Amino acid sequence: MEPSPIVQRLIQALGPELVLTDRVTLKDRRHDYWLLSQLEDLQGRGVPDPLCVVAPKDRADVVTTVNLCRESLTPVVPFGLGSGVVGGVRTGPGAVLLDMSAMARVLEIQVDNLTATFQAGVRGADAEAALAHCGLTLGHYPQSIDLSTVGGWVATRSSGQFSTAYGSIEDILLGLEAVLPDGSLLETRCVPRASTGPDLKALLTGSEGTLGVITAVTLSVRWRPETRDFNVFTAPGMEEGFETQRYILQSGWRPAVMRQYDEADAARLFPGLVNENLVLLLLVHEGPSAAVEAEKEACSALARELGCTPGDPAIGPRWMEERNHVPTFEEFLKEGIVLDTIEVAALWDRMGALYRSVMESWKTVPGILYRAAHSSHGYRSGLNLYFTFAAKPDRPGEMASLYENCWERAMEATLDVGGTISHHHGIGRVRKAKLERELGPGGIGLLRKMKQVLDPWGIMNPGVLIPD
Amino acid sequence: MEPSPIVQRLIQALGPELVLTDRVTLKDRRHDYWLLSQLEDLQGRGVPDPLCVVAPKDRADVVTTVNLCRESLTPVVPFGLGSGVVGGVRTGPGAVLLDMSAMARVLEIQVDNLTATFQAGVRGADAEAALAHCGLTLGHYPQSIDLSTVGGWVATRSSGQFSTAYGSIEDILLGLEAVLPDGSLLETRCVPRASTGPDLKALLTGSEGTLGVITAVTLSVRWRPETRDFNVFTAPGMEEGFETQRYILQSGWRPAVMRQYDEADAARLFPGLVNENLVLLLLVHEGPSAAVEAEKEACSALARELGCTPGDPAIGPRWMEERNHVPTFEEFLKEGIVLDTIEVAALWDRMGALYRSVMESWKTVPGILYRAAHSSHGYRSGLNLYFTFAAKPDRPGEMASLYENCWERAMEATLDVGGTISHHHGIGRVRKAKLERELGPGGIGLLRKMKQVLDPWGIMNPGVLIPD
Repeated sequence: MEPSPIVQRLIQALGPELVLTDRVTLKDRRHDYWLLSQLEDLQGRGVPDPLCVVAPKDRADVVTTVNLCRESLTPVVPFGLGSGVVGGVRTGPGAVLLDMSAMARVLEIQVDNLTATFQAGVRGADAEAALAHCGLTLGHYPQSIDLSTVGGWVATRSSGQFSTAYGSIEDILLGLEAVLPDGSLLETRCVPRASTGPDLKALLTGSEGTLGVITAVTLSVRWRPETRDFNVFTAPGMEEGFETQRYILQSGWRPAVMRQYDEADAARLFPGLVNENLVLLLLVHEGPSAAVEAEKEACSALARELGCTPGDPAIGPRWMEERNHVPTFEEFLKEGIVLDTIEVAALWDRMGALYRSVMESWKTVPGILYRAAHSSHGYRSGLNLYFTFAAKPDRPGEMASLYENCWERAMEATLDVGGTISHHHGIGRVRKAKLERELGPGGIGLLRKMKQVLDPWGIMNPGVLIPD
Repeated sequence: MEPSPIVQRLIQALGPELVLTDRVTLKDRRHDYWLLSQLEDLQGRGVPDPLCVVAPKDRADVVTTVNLCRESLTPVVPFGLGSGVVGGVRTGPGAVLLDMSAMARVLEIQVDNLTATFQAGVRGADAEAALAHCGLTLGHYPQSIDLSTVGGWVATRSSGQFSTAYGSIEDILLGLEAVLPDGSLLETRCVPRASTGPDLKALLTGSEGTLGVITAVTLSVRWRPETRDFNVFTAPGMEEGFETQRYILQSGWRPAVMRQYDEADAARLFPGLVNENLVLLLLVHEGPSAAVEAEKEACSALARELGCTPGDPAIGPRWMEERNHVPTFEEFLKEGIVLDTIEVAALWDRMGALYRSVMESWKTVPGILYRAAHSSHGYRSGLNLYFTFAAKPDRPGEMASLYENCWERAMEATLDVGGTISHHHGIGRVRKAKLERELGPGGIGLLRKMKQVLDPWGIMNPGVLIPD
């Protein structure tokens, strides 16, 4: 088959080695890890192949691609490593896929400044390995670190497992380079902080490919901590756990990690290590030894005061070791089971209601097999919750609608108690219909205006984030 | 004189008590604290009065004002308490001044969540006093806290004196309400963190009144710290001081305050307490007692290792007490002297060059009387510097051009070493001509697009921030 005109133009401009049209590559990059896309594949009505996959070497290649696509009104779908779980990548008919993982060079590590500049497609684990050579670390460790890119982290507003002390991606993002839909280049100045108008990095952070293509990022990195220590407790119930976390954080302590598992998640994730009907609290303290010691002692004292009991010390190291092992969706889908995690967040005074409402909303889901939650990112003002559901409908044909039903219930329950529908996975396609309620009419209007002025052609990742 | 048609319409819509046209009010609100505006007043060629001063009670009054001004293409200049020092407020001919200090209600303090919601015009010191009743504190203490508003802090991307531990305004801003130029209302969801598209609060933060009017803010507040302690050192030179600060911050410590004064600023601000030719380092440690103790000890050890010597312990309490006392510009202007502070920032490896370059750039300024610098906000990646100059030309008629000359030299020297032209005062009018070099062509283009789509009428604070 003759390649389409845009593919021909891309080959002419970039050379054939950067414009891939082989079946395997096209099939491999059609979508991210969103369950519904995987389900469609398994059910034989899969996402269509893109027209081609562009594998840029540098930002000039990205500019060329964006310019050619804009001139022909061809959709451009940026792709990192495909670990997204909300449908942020899904090639529609006639789209060009921009495989940013081809831009995977570590550009510069400045040890004096503790800064590291990466091409956007550098895999998280590779960034971390490059830093480890200098005794440094990102401090940003999403569970997907082996399967995601630094640019993808910015595009989706990622949080890492150690965010309670080290912040989320926006807190360590010092500089950014991006190609805007009109082909112009945004290069922000790399400085610790500035008051020079609105923070332009923030426009691209969380834009999910709809406002431009992030081509490089500079992150504020750290020395590897002097000490790491664990602290494990059990609490009689979720409310008691929330109160313990709240007191710790509001007293001015910042454990690098603080996680709280409800009874079901504790039993599933730490079998044999937690007594039934107990809530589990896991803390990781990191930093200078004297700070770690002071923090561990203070958190232990607070936890005891608030009715917690020391837990099995094996849990800390176990979590560290196994924290990125997760079962694939595929093995469940083949059994006719749909499942997902849904991360939301709210202020402290809504946490009990948030937990109960979402759990309650799933009680009557037909075929529900599992519902549970844990928290993983704490703030002075509140907390996130990571809900997990699994359900099996009577007929495989009902899997997609059952999945959507579970999401719908969780989103509405979260909004009803004043929470936010996403803490760090983003909107993609799975949450898009709820964004208007999340942002309100003024917010959604503002987002649409930004899209309209930056991408009046509608070429950048259409169908994602912004409701139609 | 008959009021102009827009003033008549405002009176009709808002009532005469909210639309002030008396001479004293008009004269009082013409401009902020920018030296050039004060100089013009003193020299009898002052900034013109606004058409009227609108004193809104609530956001509905702001919507009404913005709508009427847009319909008649009348400039709207938002005003907090006028403490800005970069010319962000200056009424042009025919402008309506929106006096946000009239919206000064503390809306809600949520002790469980450590959140506080204020109308935008609440004075900083009043916000702090309201929190103190509950044992809470903002943690955000700009030197202008008695003279500035919480909304103004957001509009200008303010930093407080304790930002090294507690962050700047964007780090504690949880929610925001704003009236956009089209009259629509933006109300962001108040949550600890979200990944629901680009952070819309960031668009208004630092927008200096050019993209909308901030009408309410929700801040993440704190319990008053258990302990406060001081730590004072002298260093043989600025480079040694920078290295000490860098090691402390990069080791993972976060003193609430860390300041470094060069020889001239140390002698001027702490007369009799610092030996000549020494650089002064002042740290404030705050938090739980155990954390303060560990941090103080570690910082002392690091400072000694890096060649610092303990300084006069009277300096800490003296700074706390006198930190917000500053001489007025007026007393110098009357003597024919121009002066200002210029706050910039850069990565660590440029700090020595930044200090030397700006100081050097002023050496040949005719009539230069004083040039010095201190740092006041530290980061893992770098530091700010607060330069001060004073100069007296031969003739009073040269004061403005001498002032502009000093600014021009400092801005160019900062940009030449890769620094940012403003750490926390903003752009206003005094830095506007340098913003293009700061943001680059892509950045300035993006900012202009945002202005174009949000305020195609050009009514919001024209002449500020965005170069013509």
